[in-house]
Amino acid sequence: MIDPVNLAAKFAMFHDHWRPRLAAELNDHAVKLVKLKGEFVWHRHEHEDELFLVVKGSLVIRLRDGEIRLGEGELAVIPRGVEHLPVADEEAWVVLIEPGSTLNTGEVRSGRTVEHPERI
Amino acid sequence: MIDPVNLAAKFAMFHDHWRPRLAAELNDHAVKLVKLKGEFVWHRHEHEDELFLVVKGSLVIRLRDGEIRLGEGELAVIPRGVEHLPVADEEAWVVLIEPGSTLNTGEVRSGRTVEHPERI
Repeated sequence: MIDPVNLAAKFAMFHDHWRPRLAAELNDHAVKLVKLKGEFVWHRHEHEDELFLVVKGSLVIRLRDGEIRLGEGELAVIPRGVEHLPVADEEAWVVLIEPGSTLNTGEVRSGRTVEHPERI
Repeated sequence: MIDPVNLAAKFAMFHDHWRPRLAAELNDHAVKLVKLKGEFVWHRHEHEDELFLVVKGSLVIRLRDGEIRLGEGELAVIPRGVEHLPVADEEAWVVLIEPGSTLNTGEVRSGRTVEHPERI
């Protein structure tokens, strides 16, 4: 049984920020949905590249040597090892694709770390 | 240097059907863009799950025991080993995410096989 994922319907199922949900899996990778608002924490993923795709709103990903601005329908891959800080002035809906083992806060453990994203 | 990918701008760069372009890479996976129209060939990927995300139009993925219908903003993962036949009555713009080694025609080699997708 293969269930299609309607992104808008899945995003309508939750309202909190910075807490990724698991929407699909392929190979060793996870497709996570997250709503972002405000500023996250500087972090990096030592061994994993991470894809950000903005489906609503806009997102700035600050880097130590610049920043990336993503609007709706835009994506970027943050390479492993690169420190980054996601910032969204207004709420942004973002699809993350990364290895299933990737922690949202990378090498930084905090109260915002989500060990096992809820499946929706 | 991290280049954001604007999906609409990338899709505007080509017009042929069934010939995936490489838009980004993460880990061992590739993000490919393809325009679909008409019927492809039945095939399967023996060792690779494949994600289809429709960004424009709609797509039917026929399976041996049913079918999946995807509209804009909908995605589905076809598990490894599952035979499938993508069909689009009207042109559909689709993002594929799969291992970089995945061939578009799976185990079936034909004139439609694309060995090395062009980077755009």
